[in-house]
Amino acid sequence: MKKLMLMAALCLMGMAAQAQQNLSWGQGPQVASPDVHADNSVTFNLIAPEAQKVQITGDFLPPKKVEFGGNTYDAPNVVDLVKNEKGVWSFTTEPLKPELYTYNMIVDGVKIIDPLNVYNIRDINNLFSVLLIGGDQRTDLYKVNKVAHGTVSKVWYESPTAGLTRRLTVYTPAGYETSGKEYPVLYLLHGIGGDENAWSELGRAAQILDNLIAQGKAEPMLVVMTNGNISQEACPGETSEGFKVPTMMLPKTMEGSFETAFPDVVKFIEKTYRVKKDKAHRAIAGLSMGGFHSLFISINNPDMFGYVGLFSAAVDQQQPNGGFPNIYADRNAKIDKLFAKNPKLFWIGIGKTDFLIKNNNDLRAYLDSKHHKYTYLETEGGHIWRNWRIYLSEFTPLLFK
Amino acid sequence: MKKLMLMAALCLMGMAAQAQQNLSWGQGPQVASPDVHADNSVTFNLIAPEAQKVQITGDFLPPKKVEFGGNTYDAPNVVDLVKNEKGVWSFTTEPLKPELYTYNMIVDGVKIIDPLNVYNIRDINNLFSVLLIGGDQRTDLYKVNKVAHGTVSKVWYESPTAGLTRRLTVYTPAGYETSGKEYPVLYLLHGIGGDENAWSELGRAAQILDNLIAQGKAEPMLVVMTNGNISQEACPGETSEGFKVPTMMLPKTMEGSFETAFPDVVKFIEKTYRVKKDKAHRAIAGLSMGGFHSLFISINNPDMFGYVGLFSAAVDQQQPNGGFPNIYADRNAKIDKLFAKNPKLFWIGIGKTDFLIKNNNDLRAYLDSKHHKYTYLETEGGHIWRNWRIYLSEFTPLLFK
Repeated sequence: MKKLMLMAALCLMGMAAQAQQNLSWGQGPQVASPDVHADNSVTFNLIAPEAQKVQITGDFLPPKKVEFGGNTYDAPNVVDLVKNEKGVWSFTTEPLKPELYTYNMIVDGVKIIDPLNVYNIRDINNLFSVLLIGGDQRTDLYKVNKVAHGTVSKVWYESPTAGLTRRLTVYTPAGYETSGKEYPVLYLLHGIGGDENAWSELGRAAQILDNLIAQGKAEPMLVVMTNGNISQEACPGETSEGFKVPTMMLPKTMEGSFETAFPDVVKFIEKTYRVKKDKAHRAIAGLSMGGFHSLFISINNPDMFGYVGLFSAAVDQQQPNGGFPNIYADRNAKIDKLFAKNPKLFWIGIGKTDFLIKNNNDLRAYLDSKHHKYTYLETEGGHIWRNWRIYLSEFTPLLFK
Repeated sequence: MKKLMLMAALCLMGMAAQAQQNLSWGQGPQVASPDVHADNSVTFNLIAPEAQKVQITGDFLPPKKVEFGGNTYDAPNVVDLVKNEKGVWSFTTEPLKPELYTYNMIVDGVKIIDPLNVYNIRDINNLFSVLLIGGDQRTDLYKVNKVAHGTVSKVWYESPTAGLTRRLTVYTPAGYETSGKEYPVLYLLHGIGGDENAWSELGRAAQILDNLIAQGKAEPMLVVMTNGNISQEACPGETSEGFKVPTMMLPKTMEGSFETAFPDVVKFIEKTYRVKKDKAHRAIAGLSMGGFHSLFISINNPDMFGYVGLFSAAVDQQQPNGGFPNIYADRNAKIDKLFAKNPKLFWIGIGKTDFLIKNNNDLRAYLDSKHHKYTYLETEGGHIWRNWRIYLSEFTPLLFK
C-alpha cells in the first residue's frame, strides 16, 4: 500500500512536470491514435474540443496530382476529420496496404504531429508521426523483430579535408563487439536536406539489416551513414552551433566538397573498426543527392568500391560554379574507367514517376551503348522514402557475396 | 544554372513530400521561434492565422503553486500569446537565466511542440520543445562544444534473468575505439516512466561527460544507461511490440525484478567492452526510481560498486507484494554492511522542495546515527531534470579518482 502511494506520487510528479496537466488530468475521453483495425483500416483521433477545424495529411492518402514545369507530379492530399459530441475528431482510412506511413494533423491551420502517437521522425525540418502496417515480407523487414540486433552508434570523426569534426551513424551487426572478425562496409548516403540520422530513422536501415542478416539473406556488414552537408558538423541540435534551425539549401552540398572529403570517412572507419580494407569489401550507395555523391565518389575513386548503388539518384553531369569542378568533369570517361575495372555490382533503382527518371534513363542509355553491365529496378511511385527502403532491402542482399 | 535548376527541383520535391506545402510555399511571414535576444529574453512565435487561442507552457515561466495531500508543490504555468495582423502569435519572456528549458505551445486546447523549433525531446509519452540558454559554466556543460566527443550507442544485450533481449545506451569516451585502454564504468539509471534514452536526451549525459572530460574534471569513463522498466525490451517504437503507446504505470518497475536482473547488465558490459572489472572502477547512480534502484542494487551487492549516487531518490523502505521482497528487506542492515566495506563515495542530492525530501532526510538521519560518511548536495527546486543535470555534473568529477 505504502509502495502504491509512493508510485502514485512519483507518477503525479511526473505529470506535474508536464505541461497541461490541468487540462488532461482525470478527465476527457480515452482514445488511441492511430487505432489500427483488424482489416488494416486505421482511425486517427485527436482530442480537440476547442478547435474549429482538424485535418490530416499523410502518404496513406491517395496523392493529389499537381503540375510543375509542364509535368504532373504526386503531391500530398489533405482530408478533414469529423468531431463528435465529446470533442474528439476522427478520420478512418480504407484498409491500408502494409507500409511505413508518415502523417501530420493540422489543427486550425497549424501542422502538428499526432499527440497520441509517441513515435515520430524528423526529416529536414519537418516532424512526422509514423505508422507501420506490417504483414507482408517487405514491411516486416522494417519492424524490430525478435532477432539478434546490431548496434547503432553516433560517432564523431576528424575530417581534415573539410576542416571539421563531423558526426556519422554507424551500424555494426549483431556480434560485432565480441566476434573478433573483420566485416565489409556499406557507405550509405542521404538526400538533399537530410543528415546522418536519415537512413537510421525514416530509412529503417538498422531494422532492415538486422532482419536480412537474421534471415541469412545479407552478409553481416557495417553500414556507415554520413552527413552529406559538408558545411555541417552534425544534424540540427547536435552541433556546436546549438539548436539553430536548419535551412534546406545548405552551402556546399553539390559542388564537389563532400566528394573530395569522402576519403577521410573511409580512412576513419578503417582505422577505428574491425573491417576489411579492400574494394571487394566496400560498397557505396545513396538516395537522390546521395546517389549523385555515390556516383561521383565511386567514379573518381575507381579502385575504392566494388559495389555502387544509385537510389533515385541525381545522375546528371554537373558543372558547378566554384567548388571542385574536376570532380564532375569527364563523367562518362570516368564511368568507362570504373567499368574497365569490373565492379562487382552497379545498381540503379528508380520510381516510374520520379522526376529524375529521365536523368536515369539517359545514364542507362549511355551504359547500354558501352555494354557496361548494371542491375536495374523500376518501382511504382516517385521520389519517396517508400522506394528508398525497398532499394536498400533489394541492394544489401547482393553485397559481398 | 543547370545545377541550380536541379537543386531547386530536388528541394521542391522535398517540399512536395511534406504535408501542407500548399499552405506554406512562398507565402506567409518569416519568423523564428524561439528567438533569443541579446539580453536572453526570448520571443516565441507561432504562425497560426486561423487559431482562436494560442498559449505556451514551459519551465522558464515562474511556477504556479498547487496543493496536493496537504503540501504545496510547483506546477507549470500557462500564458497566452498575442496575435498580430499577420496571424503570428507571440510571447516574450523576461531575460532568462542560463538553463536548458523545455516547453510546449497549446493551440486551441491542443498541446503541440513549437513547429519552428526542430529540437525536441520525448520524456515518457510527452514531447517537449527544447531551448538552451548558455553563458555560465554549468549550462555550457550541456552544450555540444568544440571538444573531443565520445560515442553514443544503442546496444542490445541478453538478460537471461529477465527473459528478454533488452536495449541500453552506452557512452564511450572520446578515443575509446582506438586507445587500447581499459575504462571505469558508471551505470546511470532513469526515473519512473523514463527509458534508456532519458539520460542521453533530457539528461544531456554525453555533452556533460564530453565537456567535463575535456576540461580534465572527470576521468574518461563509460556511462551505461539502462531501461529500468524490466518488462520492456526498449523504449517505445524500438521494441518488437511496434509503435505501441506506452503506459506510465509499467508492471514490474519497483518490485525487485530490475534489481535482481541487474547483474546481467554488468556481465554484458564487462564481456563486451574494454573496462576495468572491480569495485573501485564501478559506480551506480540514478534519479528518482533510478535512485531507489541504485540504493537497493548497491546494498544487495556490496562488493560491486565503489561509488553510489542517489539523485532525488525514492529511498523509502519498500515492501512489495509479490516480486522479490528479499531485495527490499533489512534495508538498514544492508546499508551497514555496505559501509562496513568502505565505499569510496556515497552521494545524495535532492532539491529543497522535492516531495521526496523527507524520505531523504530520514535516510540521512540514519546514516548520521551510524556515522556512515556521505556527501550531500541540496539544491533549489524540486523533482526536475534541471536538478538531475546538476547532480550528474557534480557527481561524475568525484568518480574513479
